[in-house]
Amino acid sequence: MQNPYLMFLGDVGDQLGAKTAQGIVDWRPEWCIGQLRLPNCKADLRIRDITIEEAVASGAKTMIVGIVNSGGFLPDHWISVIVEAIEAGMDVASGLHIRLSDIAEIKAAAEKNGAALFDVRHPTNSIPTGKGTPRTGKRLLAVGTDCSVGKMYTALAIEKEMHKRGLKADFRATGQTGIFIAGSGISIDAVVADFISGAVEELSPANDADHWDIIEGQGSLFHPSFAGVSLGLLHGAQADALVLCHEPTRTHMRGLPHQPLPDLRTCMELNLTTARLTNKNAHFVGVAINTSDLDEAKRQEYLAKVEKELGLPTIDPFKDGTAAIVDNLP
Amino acid sequence: MQNPYLMFLGDVGDQLGAKTAQGIVDWRPEWCIGQLRLPNCKADLRIRDITIEEAVASGAKTMIVGIVNSGGFLPDHWISVIVEAIEAGMDVASGLHIRLSDIAEIKAAAEKNGAALFDVRHPTNSIPTGKGTPRTGKRLLAVGTDCSVGKMYTALAIEKEMHKRGLKADFRATGQTGIFIAGSGISIDAVVADFISGAVEELSPANDADHWDIIEGQGSLFHPSFAGVSLGLLHGAQADALVLCHEPTRTHMRGLPHQPLPDLRTCMELNLTTARLTNKNAHFVGVAINTSDLDEAKRQEYLAKVEKELGLPTIDPFKDGTAAIVDNLP
Repeated sequence: MQNPYLMFLGDVGDQLGAKTAQGIVDWRPEWCIGQLRLPNCKADLRIRDITIEEAVASGAKTMIVGIVNSGGFLPDHWISVIVEAIEAGMDVASGLHIRLSDIAEIKAAAEKNGAALFDVRHPTNSIPTGKGTPRTGKRLLAVGTDCSVGKMYTALAIEKEMHKRGLKADFRATGQTGIFIAGSGISIDAVVADFISGAVEELSPANDADHWDIIEGQGSLFHPSFAGVSLGLLHGAQADALVLCHEPTRTHMRGLPHQPLPDLRTCMELNLTTARLTNKNAHFVGVAINTSDLDEAKRQEYLAKVEKELGLPTIDPFKDGTAAIVDNLP
Repeated sequence: MQNPYLMFLGDVGDQLGAKTAQGIVDWRPEWCIGQLRLPNCKADLRIRDITIEEAVASGAKTMIVGIVNSGGFLPDHWISVIVEAIEAGMDVASGLHIRLSDIAEIKAAAEKNGAALFDVRHPTNSIPTGKGTPRTGKRLLAVGTDCSVGKMYTALAIEKEMHKRGLKADFRATGQTGIFIAGSGISIDAVVADFISGAVEELSPANDADHWDIIEGQGSLFHPSFAGVSLGLLHGAQADALVLCHEPTRTHMRGLPHQPLPDLRTCMELNLTTARLTNKNAHFVGVAINTSDLDEAKRQEYLAKVEKELGLPTIDPFKDGTAAIVDNLP
């Protein structure tokens, strides 16, 4: 995917519907040259509103449909806007379940204008099965007690801190928002089950001995819906360093009211036991807590308690940065 | 899939190419009314050779393409035979990677004659994500130290023993050969990663309190290529009873010369730890060893040693039957 991006929000009904687009603007503001909103759009990325013509004149290469809606469909009245963007010279990328190329008008416009269509949820390359063969370079993987506890955010914040220090590091995206932010990646929960670990081996190939891949985790080994994805990802990553991500106010596994969260130590132990199948040296280097729902006193108390109990640098990457974790890398 | 079956072997080059077909004949001989072989076919199921006309006259409902070849393709000169079977009134089922419905002549013939085409590697139903919610009925899952150590064979042998005793039991197939044998199932390694555990919940729904699903396992938690599949399968199965399957002469994980096998106790411990996420009562009820490569003295010695070490009934299901394991069910 080529940047800069024009962010297309359609007419989504609330700010949450633009969560993916917001993630891109948060992490790659320099790639986002404007937003295009239809009448009645209730989301706002707080970047300038521009037309397709203005976007192209400003150098936009790809229009991003960075929208989440239930069902993953594309409303009919968005099609003509997407066709217009293609005719104006842009590629189009979407994180919806429906494929852009499955919509006849969009497919025809892309073929006629030589535009590329990216459906980031749908892996395109043929992926081999994982091999588990050790490869050069170093890898860090963010793992979690649950889904949506800040694994992507943590990985991106670690990459940013490493770049600030002039270290060689690449964020490796395994979900749709991450793919838009990185400009590439594999939506790991959408590959065929046999190829989970193979996809991660492809995503994070052999590299310089002092290079770090900072790999976005998915799900949790303790989530009954998605643990298979998490385990294949862990084995494929051959992680040298693990970071545990947690949201302390969560009362049950996301989407499953009957399912309790694991305690942090139990979660670390199972991740370590299984990670060591493909990397004997795997170990935890830090803990990242999403403390957004705690007041400052509770937040400090909680971080201090976890740091003492686990003996690992414990931070909220959003509020404290990730320097303490990067300091602890092997 | 409706039985009885006509077994189509094409002109495969050796007996191994008909491994899937042989599995069906071994376990469902009463469904297999004959084999159809092309000139130069090197495989033989040792059932009668019949023509398509004879098969239909004998009541055959489905022609099974029970062939394994590298690449999973369908040789061009088989197409006309498949079309002929459809025109004679049969459905067709295939375990190849290529879909029957992707071959224009076969698709057209099926539409014209109202025949069903089954591509057992390709899940057709839309599958929800797993929920982990406890469901009624009991479940046994065969798990392994590695791929291809006898998990399907063990599960089928347990189902057979339970039926002999008049117990309520259904073999639940998770791979292509198993699906042909059961007449239904889901090829679990072919579902999209997000839906592994959900697929097993679908495959093995709530049932009578005294009913057992005997679920075919796949891969191994210790196989770096496929462990994600094995974990999702374990969580979806909510197994009450686990049977450990092992092949004692294996020197490394199948296909991965660098990867050692886990010892039996380590393998059991990780399966128990992870199984208990969705069923607190999960426990091992027996060990099934494939002793085909051991002489009788070594075989007896090995079984006795494992039985003593693990404190569980330890048998070769092919030579000893599974009565000792069924005796040990809760």
